[in-house]
Amino acid sequence: MPIAKKEWKCVRTEPGPDLKLFTTRFDYMKNPRNDQTDKMIIIESEDSANVIALTPEKQILFVRQFRFGIRDFTVELPGGLVESGEEQAIAVQRELEEETGYTSQKWHPLGKIPSNPVFMNSFIHHWVATEAIKTSEVQWDESEDIELLLIPLEEARERLYQGFFQHPHTSNALILFFKWLDDLK
Amino acid sequence: MPIAKKEWKCVRTEPGPDLKLFTTRFDYMKNPRNDQTDKMIIIESEDSANVIALTPEKQILFVRQFRFGIRDFTVELPGGLVESGEEQAIAVQRELEEETGYTSQKWHPLGKIPSNPVFMNSFIHHWVATEAIKTSEVQWDESEDIELLLIPLEEARERLYQGFFQHPHTSNALILFFKWLDDLK
Repeated sequence: MPIAKKEWKCVRTEPGPDLKLFTTRFDYMKNPRNDQTDKMIIIESEDSANVIALTPEKQILFVRQFRFGIRDFTVELPGGLVESGEEQAIAVQRELEEETGYTSQKWHPLGKIPSNPVFMNSFIHHWVATEAIKTSEVQWDESEDIELLLIPLEEARERLYQGFFQHPHTSNALILFFKWLDDLK
Repeated sequence: MPIAKKEWKCVRTEPGPDLKLFTTRFDYMKNPRNDQTDKMIIIESEDSANVIALTPEKQILFVRQFRFGIRDFTVELPGGLVESGEEQAIAVQRELEEETGYTSQKWHPLGKIPSNPVFMNSFIHHWVATEAIKTSEVQWDESEDIELLLIPLEEARERLYQGFFQHPHTSNALILFFKWLDDLK
């Protein structure tokens, strides 16, 4: 797929409002097709990471929690925001342990994808952790209230295809995981 | 999976800053585990929709465009925001025609997923349109500059598993599409 690149130029940028979880900026981007400049909102944050943690019994760890955007519960992979200055590979191990009490010695990166390339500057990194075992109690943040679910591998695959997982970052991680798993065979 | 529901209560809400593409609000949510209240940012918008448009030659239509969040090009399914008062089923037909010049008489819904359940109130609706043919010239918005790509069905499947598509909403739509396609066989 040979493709010519026509980059948009940012001709001006200014800080936007603070959104508590995020900072923002407005970029004034010039369209190379017509030289028109448009003001675009960019939501800035650290990257995030999530993990398919597989137990020795071939179950995947999921967390069920109330999500404020849709005011409903979702079932998602464990994960969260990388803290400032933290390696994302470390962040995901921390999040797994905090949210589930499980740890693993065997981690493998599955790649990353933009959180939402349209207006966010961050990426979500996907990991698989095998032989995950319970080693500590959960350490929830004050703003967390989490329920742990263990779903057998093949049931999780079926649920992925049914559209059960209500977060695109969980779906994307699972696609890459099942491809990785199938390639091992 | 029997699960007790412990809903968080919104005890107060206030308007947040206007982000041009989005409006925002701050919700004060009370954690049922500890009764602590946290201020959460919610980004409000209409839903969006995207489509797997399949040509008679079994190619899928993709659009390549510069995305401001990551300041790089992505290859995504055609789609976009539903306009206020517009049906999402109509919006996706409009977006397909505007972005690609293709139309179809055969549309099938594939389901929806929250855009990002953590802090967005919107959903993305996925569609498949078969026998899509070119019927008009593209009608790009002033802030669009789009390149059309036709990718053969099985090549698109392979690229999905390689992590080629850099938007989680495109990946999620493709999973549901390939499941739908495989179930037809």
